Amino acid sequence: MTPDRAFFDRLADAARAETLPRFRSGLSVVDKGGQHYDPVTEGDQAAEAAIRSLIEAEFPDHGILGEEHGSVGLDRDYVWVIDPIDGTRAFISGVPVWGTLVGLYHKGRAVMGLIDQPFTGERYFADGEKSIYRGPDGERVIRTSGCARVEDAKLFTTSPHLFEGRDETVYRAIEKKARLFRYGVDCYAYALLASGHVDLVVECSLKPYDVGGIIPVVEQAGGVMTDWQGGRPEMGGYIVAAATEALHREALEMLNA
Amino acid sequence: MTPDRAFFDRLADAARAETLPRFRSGLSVVDKGGQHYDPVTEGDQAAEAAIRSLIEAEFPDHGILGEEHGSVGLDRDYVWVIDPIDGTRAFISGVPVWGTLVGLYHKGRAVMGLIDQPFTGERYFADGEKSIYRGPDGERVIRTSGCARVEDAKLFTTSPHLFEGRDETVYRAIEKKARLFRYGVDCYAYALLASGHVDLVVECSLKPYDVGGIIPVVEQAGGVMTDWQGGRPEMGGYIVAAATEALHREALEMLNA
Repeated sequence: MTPDRAFFDRLADAARAETLPRFRSGLSVVDKGGQHYDPVTEGDQAAEAAIRSLIEAEFPDHGILGEEHGSVGLDRDYVWVIDPIDGTRAFISGVPVWGTLVGLYHKGRAVMGLIDQPFTGERYFADGEKSIYRGPDGERVIRTSGCARVEDAKLFTTSPHLFEGRDETVYRAIEKKARLFRYGVDCYAYALLASGHVDLVVECSLKPYDVGGIIPVVEQAGGVMTDWQGGRPEMGGYIVAAATEALHREALEMLNA
Repeated sequence: MTPDRAFFDRLADAARAETLPRFRSGLSVVDKGGQHYDPVTEGDQAAEAAIRSLIEAEFPDHGILGEEHGSVGLDRDYVWVIDPIDGTRAFISGVPVWGTLVGLYHKGRAVMGLIDQPFTGERYFADGEKSIYRGPDGERVIRTSGCARVEDAKLFTTSPHLFEGRDETVYRAIEKKARLFRYGVDCYAYALLASGHVDLVVECSLKPYDVGGIIPVVEQAGGVMTDWQGGRPEMGGYIVAAATEALHREALEMLNA
């Protein structure tokens, strides 16, 4: 078989069975250590294990890169990139803007992807050609907005504190010019970008598993997602995602001014 | 009749019929003017009109203070305090953390209150004695957490940019000490405080309609909510809400250091 929507749904459902019962319940938080607050929940670990076992059963010759349980076969043609709970701070604070992210890379390029929010019942899926939203208000193919200028853009980032030095200066210039900015919704910002409600996302310090599931959803909805130099975003790092090519170009110019 | 849960449900349902169909749809945004971005949506205005007409029909001798359509009879014993869409930036960005707020004041004190999030299907209601949550995962009486120290607290505020000068200094001291902080969820932060997922909310520049529906939900769940001097919060302004008396006391000391 080849990976299809039904298989991604199985992955999302398996993860959901581990995450949702633990959301807004008592849960143990383990600090990984390091400078930033970086909690890992039982749900995070159990959800990734559930996703991996389904992939290993169906696609034993594929590689896997996961946040919690490490990497296998990253040199293979197909590699699955998994973040079982993106937005762990939102998760432990009860805010339903965390998500389960699963991306499928082919020869290093993200070709299919999933963003799932179990509490709100929203699922964003890119099938290789188009991005599809399913939620409490129905199902539809989604497109990014037509926003072409930073001054008209609704801008999201996880936290302005993540930028330092020159990065903060150029980020703040975009923030100042944008029509509206908001903090703290993690992967959910990209889902809203893909569905036309948000126009621009600027971030740094991302890992491959933070972006793997997201890239296809954004690109196949008509958005542009690269690193701050305009290169492919699959490895994470400094990321800019925009609703249109024109908006992306302006943001990139400002980030490299 | 006296206002009861069924009546508050009617208010929430009437508002929901105006807000939810406009959420994530094309919608007109009117800038009120002034220094900050302050959008008003059609849904905001229509929802308040719907709420007011129900109140005027059932309780013609009560006063009303609303965000959109002004004030009537603020000197009466009972006054309804309405914010049809708290979190308009979240609303226009597609993030389901805005809410409809309705509070009932008796002789200046908030005695019953409602926080409703139509997209997620969450409704938080304070009936005069207790706070009740109803949502996709069922219904239950809610209580704040037992968190007693700032260093253990999950802290929320709308935006750090709202604080200036000395206010910013004391706010940042709390942020630095807290276990975790997040920005940008408006009224939803107080709902999460009342239900035990968030421990501390610190804000400024609030209007009465920003807090009227929230105060009873927080207090009747066991929380403490005052202004930064420890006085009653009904008039808005500088607000601190905490899960416990001990946490509130420590936050107040830090804000007045």
